[in-house]
Amino acid sequence: EKMQKIADIRYAAALLQWDQETYMPKKGADFRSRQVATLSEFAHQKFTDKSLGDLIRTLSFSGELPEKERANVKLSLEDYERSTRLTPAFVREMAETVSESFNAWIRAREENNFTIFAPSLAKLVNLKRKEAELLGFKAHPYDALLNEFERGCTVELLDGIFNQLREPLNQLIKKIAASEQVDDSFLFQHFPKDEQWKFGMELLAEFGYDLEAGRQDISEHPFTVSFNNKDVRVTTRIDEFNFNNMTWSCIHEIGHALYEQGLPEEEYGLPLGEAASLGIHESQSRLWENNVGRSIAFWEYYYPRLKKYFPRQLGEIDLSQFYKAINKVQPSLIRTEADEVTYHFHVMIRYELEKKLIAGEIEVNDIRDYWNDQYLTYLGVQVPDDKSGCLQDVHWSHGSFGYFPTYSLGSFYAAQFFNKAQDVLPGLNNMISSGNLRVLLEWLRVNIHVHGRMFTSEELCRRICGEGLNTTYFMDYIHNKYGRIYVI
Amino acid sequence: EKMQKIADIRYAAALLQWDQETYMPKKGADFRSRQVATLSEFAHQKFTDKSLGDLIRTLSFSGELPEKERANVKLSLEDYERSTRLTPAFVREMAETVSESFNAWIRAREENNFTIFAPSLAKLVNLKRKEAELLGFKAHPYDALLNEFERGCTVELLDGIFNQLREPLNQLIKKIAASEQVDDSFLFQHFPKDEQWKFGMELLAEFGYDLEAGRQDISEHPFTVSFNNKDVRVTTRIDEFNFNNMTWSCIHEIGHALYEQGLPEEEYGLPLGEAASLGIHESQSRLWENNVGRSIAFWEYYYPRLKKYFPRQLGEIDLSQFYKAINKVQPSLIRTEADEVTYHFHVMIRYELEKKLIAGEIEVNDIRDYWNDQYLTYLGVQVPDDKSGCLQDVHWSHGSFGYFPTYSLGSFYAAQFFNKAQDVLPGLNNMISSGNLRVLLEWLRVNIHVHGRMFTSEELCRRICGEGLNTTYFMDYIHNKYGRIYVI
Repeated sequence: EKMQKIADIRYAAALLQWDQETYMPKKGADFRSRQVATLSEFAHQKFTDKSLGDLIRTLSFSGELPEKERANVKLSLEDYERSTRLTPAFVREMAETVSESFNAWIRAREENNFTIFAPSLAKLVNLKRKEAELLGFKAHPYDALLNEFERGCTVELLDGIFNQLREPLNQLIKKIAASEQVDDSFLFQHFPKDEQWKFGMELLAEFGYDLEAGRQDISEHPFTVSFNNKDVRVTTRIDEFNFNNMTWSCIHEIGHALYEQGLPEEEYGLPLGEAASLGIHESQSRLWENNVGRSIAFWEYYYPRLKKYFPRQLGEIDLSQFYKAINKVQPSLIRTEADEVTYHFHVMIRYELEKKLIAGEIEVNDIRDYWNDQYLTYLGVQVPDDKSGCLQDVHWSHGSFGYFPTYSLGSFYAAQFFNKAQDVLPGLNNMISSGNLRVLLEWLRVNIHVHGRMFTSEELCRRICGEGLNTTYFMDYIHNKYGRIYVI
Repeated sequence: EKMQKIADIRYAAALLQWDQETYMPKKGADFRSRQVATLSEFAHQKFTDKSLGDLIRTLSFSGELPEKERANVKLSLEDYERSTRLTPAFVREMAETVSESFNAWIRAREENNFTIFAPSLAKLVNLKRKEAELLGFKAHPYDALLNEFERGCTVELLDGIFNQLREPLNQLIKKIAASEQVDDSFLFQHFPKDEQWKFGMELLAEFGYDLEAGRQDISEHPFTVSFNNKDVRVTTRIDEFNFNNMTWSCIHEIGHALYEQGLPEEEYGLPLGEAASLGIHESQSRLWENNVGRSIAFWEYYYPRLKKYFPRQLGEIDLSQFYKAINKVQPSLIRTEADEVTYHFHVMIRYELEKKLIAGEIEVNDIRDYWNDQYLTYLGVQVPDDKSGCLQDVHWSHGSFGYFPTYSLGSFYAAQFFNKAQDVLPGLNNMISSGNLRVLLEWLRVNIHVHGRMFTSEELCRRICGEGLNTTYFMDYIHNKYGRIYVI
């Protein structure tokens, strides 16, 4: 009961943030910051209250609890112990700085000028460094922050994964660059806003998102937010001259939202009512976005429907051309618009940057130069301005450092889960190509969603696949897929 | 600082309620109820905390405070003492029941069936009776509830006012009924939604509402809500076959919103940052809606603009016809659509009903019959269904009993204030007829808005008009105006 009341406050704060990014009038920003900060402070105060800690500890010594309750107690104790390391004053300062930073980021984007964002970001980075100290770490301060999004994730682990993938990915990109290029110019015709919106709403329904337990709105940066599994909202953005923009962010957020709608309602406010980890969350968004949404099977069914929205734009384009175009591989500036292959370089650049930033090896004022230099080195692209460069992501303005690596982990888990689904669900591709996405959703519900935080990412992966995270499945998937598209 | 943090929680709860009535997906209702209830409970807990009470009491003994701080302390002490009469459990139960009732009211309206609403309403009425007991009263339990919206307002006072007005109003209505009737049929042509919306948005700007410190959305029942004076939102509803519906509710809410936007920002979270009373709040909405919005002067300027939105519907209608039509007096079913004269019978019926309900002289199951009977007796109209009868107002579902009388008080204060404004602002009518509403707004800002709760309604009225509430101004105003329109 106590935990659920704390959840009420946290979810109220989440609604205030949703509103801030969708409907809040401009001048309301300052008061909103303090309102969100107060809620965060109270939630933190209540959760770190000694009497709650004592209660959780007492329960953790009880051997009589059924399995799920035992898991709730164990995870609550972990959360409690971690939270008590942060003081109420620190939590409030963080919440206020985050709100301020978000508004600075919006202004900076409007002006296309990183230096407008830099002062609040510098405050935030200092707070995150302090947070790492308070939370504690063994090898690297960034480990403490990574752990916030993906329990047990470390610099050592990620260095291992990325060092292993960097060269093969680079090789594949080079081979693709040397092949005959895909024409995707027709995706950059005029796709009117209203039609895109309707198309997105159809996608939401098509994938099994419950529109009576959620809604879609427009925001600067698309996101999913949940206030309980009966109110899970997504946002999107629409670029009238870029078919990709809305489409992939919409399917991506659908993946997140399906996970949240599938969490067990009776566990509201308790750890088992929460997602396993951000990596697993991203595995859901990536699986629907890439393994399903960018597959030939999905568009066999869906492309004729899409053409009805855009007969003028797509009437002359056949399925094969369309499929190749939506899978075009090309080094680019914007992470959220990147293809499945080059995507991971966007993540690796951010990962290295954050690692250095938190360790104090570079400072906020170095970000622009570092960013632009890395994009040139790894992706061979020249960053023309901040909006296409270091101002493109909302994450830092939210205080989310250590988040980006979960995108790559999500892709790797997604490939591994999808490979397993194809093994155990006979005819899955045929189902997808006949518009039946429910069997796959049900499989994810049963194997992942209903468990909440019962298992760690690694445990979940072992239960489902019989082994832990193995990036071979991802590499096989992209070698196969892009080998065919680019005839390599 | 403590008070402001409590305000943060209250305003967060207000945003949750705004969202509930505008954008919340259907299935989110249950969890939303508990989230609002938790915030209300915490806000109440924090405000009734003994340490805060001690602090306020200590300050109240200090003779050294400047005037405004002294007023804040005095009013906070009153609020504190009143709040401590309600237990946290009672406050939570009330908040949950209100949320449940609101959803039941929505469903009951959809089904056009009061009996769907009745069970939750009965729970709510019982809680309100209990609230009256807890708050305490001298003569009548309803006094305790009236006092929540209008400090010092009593059954004795309202009986006095209404008994005095009932007969003269009745006489006027009879004379009007015996005169040549006004044709307003052209107001019930098709007025497309989008054009009405745009027209409403122009009205908002025209009256001086700051659109960067607020926004308008659609809801079942129009309302104004404030989260601070930089984020004051209004809602409206649109009936495509009724010009009046959106127009008057829009201007009405503008009046409320102008008051909220004019409250002193530096008093956020303190009594002086709040409105004087609901009666004064309604004086602002009524003044703009009726004394300005239904005046010939206003439409001299604004009617040509309106015609641009609806050339087909209003092209052939001249100003005089239009002015008469928007002021047509005719007994009707719906309070919010009633004219300025018959309006007060709607209020009197509700007032008598609530008085009896709280006193236990009638029960919730009697409401429909009582309502329909009174409408026949006083307004001579047959109520065809619940949606046009006892289900028409949102107020009860919000737990607001004792609210309706403030609408009439508001009209009476509005007439008195507007009469004074005409005295002290030379050429006011000419300003209005040339589209200048800012001088009047400024006068209201200086005389009413900036003071917050510094003065009671009665004190405010005396400061502005040199005398307390005097319904003569209202009666003179309607006798004059309608005497001319109906040539009586």
